[in-house]
Amino acid sequence: LPAQVKLRERVFATLRRSFELSGFEPIDTPAFERLETLTGKYGEEGDKLIFKILRRGEQGKSGEVDLALRYDLTVPMARFYARNRQELSSPFKRYQIGPVWRADRPGRGRFREFYQCDVDIIGSDSELAEVEILATLAHAYKAAGLPGCVFQVNSRRVLDALLEVYGVPAEHRGGTTVALDKLDKIGVDGVMDELSERGLPAEARSRIRADLEASEVQSVVRERVAALEHGQAGLANLDDICALAGPLMPAGTTIAFSPFLARGLDYYTGMVFEVFHKDLPIAIGSGGRYDNLIENLAGVSAPACGGSVGVERVIMLLEAEERRAPAASCDVMVTVWNRDGRADALQVTSMLREHGLRAEVFLGTGKLAKQLKRAGKQAIPCVVMRGPDEVAAGRATVKFLAGGEQATVDLDQLATVIKDRLSAG
Amino acid sequence: LPAQVKLRERVFATLRRSFELSGFEPIDTPAFERLETLTGKYGEEGDKLIFKILRRGEQGKSGEVDLALRYDLTVPMARFYARNRQELSSPFKRYQIGPVWRADRPGRGRFREFYQCDVDIIGSDSELAEVEILATLAHAYKAAGLPGCVFQVNSRRVLDALLEVYGVPAEHRGGTTVALDKLDKIGVDGVMDELSERGLPAEARSRIRADLEASEVQSVVRERVAALEHGQAGLANLDDICALAGPLMPAGTTIAFSPFLARGLDYYTGMVFEVFHKDLPIAIGSGGRYDNLIENLAGVSAPACGGSVGVERVIMLLEAEERRAPAASCDVMVTVWNRDGRADALQVTSMLREHGLRAEVFLGTGKLAKQLKRAGKQAIPCVVMRGPDEVAAGRATVKFLAGGEQATVDLDQLATVIKDRLSAG
Repeated sequence: LPAQVKLRERVFATLRRSFELSGFEPIDTPAFERLETLTGKYGEEGDKLIFKILRRGEQGKSGEVDLALRYDLTVPMARFYARNRQELSSPFKRYQIGPVWRADRPGRGRFREFYQCDVDIIGSDSELAEVEILATLAHAYKAAGLPGCVFQVNSRRVLDALLEVYGVPAEHRGGTTVALDKLDKIGVDGVMDELSERGLPAEARSRIRADLEASEVQSVVRERVAALEHGQAGLANLDDICALAGPLMPAGTTIAFSPFLARGLDYYTGMVFEVFHKDLPIAIGSGGRYDNLIENLAGVSAPACGGSVGVERVIMLLEAEERRAPAASCDVMVTVWNRDGRADALQVTSMLREHGLRAEVFLGTGKLAKQLKRAGKQAIPCVVMRGPDEVAAGRATVKFLAGGEQATVDLDQLATVIKDRLSAG
Repeated sequence: LPAQVKLRERVFATLRRSFELSGFEPIDTPAFERLETLTGKYGEEGDKLIFKILRRGEQGKSGEVDLALRYDLTVPMARFYARNRQELSSPFKRYQIGPVWRADRPGRGRFREFYQCDVDIIGSDSELAEVEILATLAHAYKAAGLPGCVFQVNSRRVLDALLEVYGVPAEHRGGTTVALDKLDKIGVDGVMDELSERGLPAEARSRIRADLEASEVQSVVRERVAALEHGQAGLANLDDICALAGPLMPAGTTIAFSPFLARGLDYYTGMVFEVFHKDLPIAIGSGGRYDNLIENLAGVSAPACGGSVGVERVIMLLEAEERRAPAASCDVMVTVWNRDGRADALQVTSMLREHGLRAEVFLGTGKLAKQLKRAGKQAIPCVVMRGPDEVAAGRATVKFLAGGEQATVDLDQLATVIKDRLSAG
């Protein structure tokens, strides 16, 4: 519905402006990819959720498919980068906002189309890239109307070293990471149950439980990781990023070290983060460094890091606010006195638009009372009336519906009078 | 590529603002529709061009399809209106900008995704609705960067009366309309050949040829149509619309009566129009009144009129201009003096962004010459440098690459100095 679409467009426009202010460039990719480009990239479960498109014409008669709707913006981005990298600036700072499609709840008659919003720096291994991603996203959330976010950060290098210290065997690292990542949702006991089910040796499990229950988790973890040289290096890199990013955060936004944060996706290689807002128990953004992904997806080696704004969740948070104060579709309605007054009403409307007011003319003619009633029904705050007397005098009558006050002013003052009154609220 | 995407987004944003200024509200509909909603709506040829989506899971194994990608924005709009009309304002002024999909050139490896942009007023039979559509589109073209458009207008009621006067039998009206609509493309002889192929009686054909070749076509046609009462009424309606819309057109935009303009689509019932720009031989927009379409498509009776901006063609015209003067991705690059200078460089970058400058920081460190070279390569007009001396003095050095001039200024003057210089060009 219109109010929702307006809010969405406003959020998208704000994010775009914010990213471009930070020197990120927009890319766009088609809604389709060849089916073979997508198959196998999202695991077995993911493959089932891909919308597949029938071949056209004769070839489609046997039910053959060749195309698929994009499932995320990451695979298309990797393909785009691999194909166009000669023409792109290096490092390439890109953003993309667009719909993706997943057949998430088959049979409910609701086909899943939702927007993703990704920001990435491709071709830089500098820690400044991570800093730029964190700072850019923090300012984007604020600009969109959500100040006060918390960025929880960790590093895959730190987490890997920690698992090594715990004595988690190499073949259990992936599963343990996945289980630890659920700490927020399922608590310490839940994580321990899952680790037990996954067959993690008892000794490693008891070490993990002790740390999960420690009162000073962060310092305990820091100490353990520092025992290994590569753990120390990972920690120094993460501390460096946080020290540089901290002063760039807008007021109210904070960065917090979250030593068990893993991010489910196994393609991250360095810093990882999730963004939280007090009004929602789930993350509204995430990201990290993924130095091998582009090569795995598109065969071109490029270090990279990036982040996603969970734009549907951001919109959800903002919609809750909007419901408390819905916006009118228009600032002012110009009434039509009678058939002979049509041209004048149209010209007054046009003049108001030139002054930046969202103006509409009553379509058709009708009793003035009927016209006023329609403006009221649509919550249009202000109505302009111009009968023969006003036309002769070069004036117009303006009525503000909320307070009911009415004034007759010179036509060339009309836009100013309306703007002043509306901005006064 | 980024420059193209930026231009597209700018055009979309300008059109949105323009439509909302005129009180039109945005709607959005899913990329999918149920296949049966689309089948049969676009003729046999159209049906072949619809992208069909395989059922998910087990049901898809036999090649069964149930969904389809939208083919235009009209059918989704009719469905949207029929479903939500109780919640919408009446008349409902809506616009929609979004992609549609057609399998237009199978086998070329190029899958057709393109944007449509529609503006409609649903639920009004007032001639002011047509006037509003014409005026709103004219201002939208101008805002997008294309002043000086020509709106060629006609009326289906006028054209129908004309065919009646020519003695075109009822069963030939549709075919004759289609042939006449091609006058611009295939000329008088082409139209006459097609009418002959379609089996139009010789007498009607010779009358049509005489008028097509007349020197004062418009007045000849007006006279003929005026001989019939409903022709006269149609003409009066069209004249009324033009007289009201004329004074609302932005400078340089004109409205011209084009008596053989038909618009291929047979759903128009009243005024029809096409928009032309001198740099392109094909229309960049079109529309008209279609009082029966919503009922035919969605079973709910509602008079309506509207127009489409040929947004891909508009973008094509603007791209030609853009190629002459490509835009830089960024206003200013902040260099990094050395590893200890990273935090400072980031904070200067952040400060410049807060002043509305698109700023980026050099990612990593490196010789100053290398950093400057990269700025030059990306056509970034301005570079900021801050060594230990400048930091100690609270100053910064700024270099403008085009002219090569350089200045050291107080840090709190930096953004102003850059803005002034860049806006001076």
